[in-house]
Amino acid sequence: MPKLDLDTIPQSNATGYPPPFDAPVAGRWYRRLAPAGGLADFGVSHVVLKPGAWSSQRHWHIGEDEFLVMLSGEAVLVDDDGEHILRAGDCASFPKNDGNGHHLQNRSAAECAFVVVGGGTDLGGDYPDIDMRWTPDDRYVHKDGAPY
Amino acid sequence: MPKLDLDTIPQSNATGYPPPFDAPVAGRWYRRLAPAGGLADFGVSHVVLKPGAWSSQRHWHIGEDEFLVMLSGEAVLVDDDGEHILRAGDCASFPKNDGNGHHLQNRSAAECAFVVVGGGTDLGGDYPDIDMRWTPDDRYVHKDGAPY
Repeated sequence: MPKLDLDTIPQSNATGYPPPFDAPVAGRWYRRLAPAGGLADFGVSHVVLKPGAWSSQRHWHIGEDEFLVMLSGEAVLVDDDGEHILRAGDCASFPKNDGNGHHLQNRSAAECAFVVVGGGTDLGGDYPDIDMRWTPDDRYVHKDGAPY
Repeated sequence: MPKLDLDTIPQSNATGYPPPFDAPVAGRWYRRLAPAGGLADFGVSHVVLKPGAWSSQRHWHIGEDEFLVMLSGEAVLVDDDGEHILRAGDCASFPKNDGNGHHLQNRSAAECAFVVVGGGTDLGGDYPDIDMRWTPDDRYVHKDGAPY
């Protein structure tokens, strides 16, 4: 059935980030909607951020476009242009390879939720604020390529 | 800037549907967010349905996955499985080539809004309720291929 029952789709806060970079995303709870909905042409995640949680470390993708729409609550989008409040209905786009690291921070006292879509080819990407990048085969490494 | 200012993105109710199939979508007002946001790996539209409006004729895609998330108001998702109410935060997925014609109807007295994402390759598709299909080069034709 096309309508998705979110309650039946597993929710996870798992991350492959090495410490201490994993701590800010411990309160990020995501559901992978594309496989649950039978979609293969792009990825879709439904994400809930607990108070204080980040969506990720600030990052940008080499080969994948990203699009985000807020569903509820309030988050702060942080990127090279500054800080921007996102509330229900607000949209943001992150073109691949633009070098503009971005993430969301939930600085409020309530949960917030958003849907994020990713397409293209995973060629890895970079985290401008920390000594980490990720590789096309999805490993987290130091800037010089040394593994964590 | 990643955050999109929806008010600056043109809104259109244009359709290529021939009469009388164009009438139900006259109250469908959409913005193309992917080009506005610099995205090329998938399409994204922000759509407002006025009371009474449909999102499209009931249809399915041969080569494109679709994903929809409701932002506000209420719509009825009609597909081969029946009717399903969608409200803010509800999600629906439409795998390509599944033959399950779908669309949204706004039967409420207020506007509703949603975001819809499409990816893959436009190979055309079918409208199960009417004598129309669309071609890979985006023409609307009768089931037998005769043009409108």
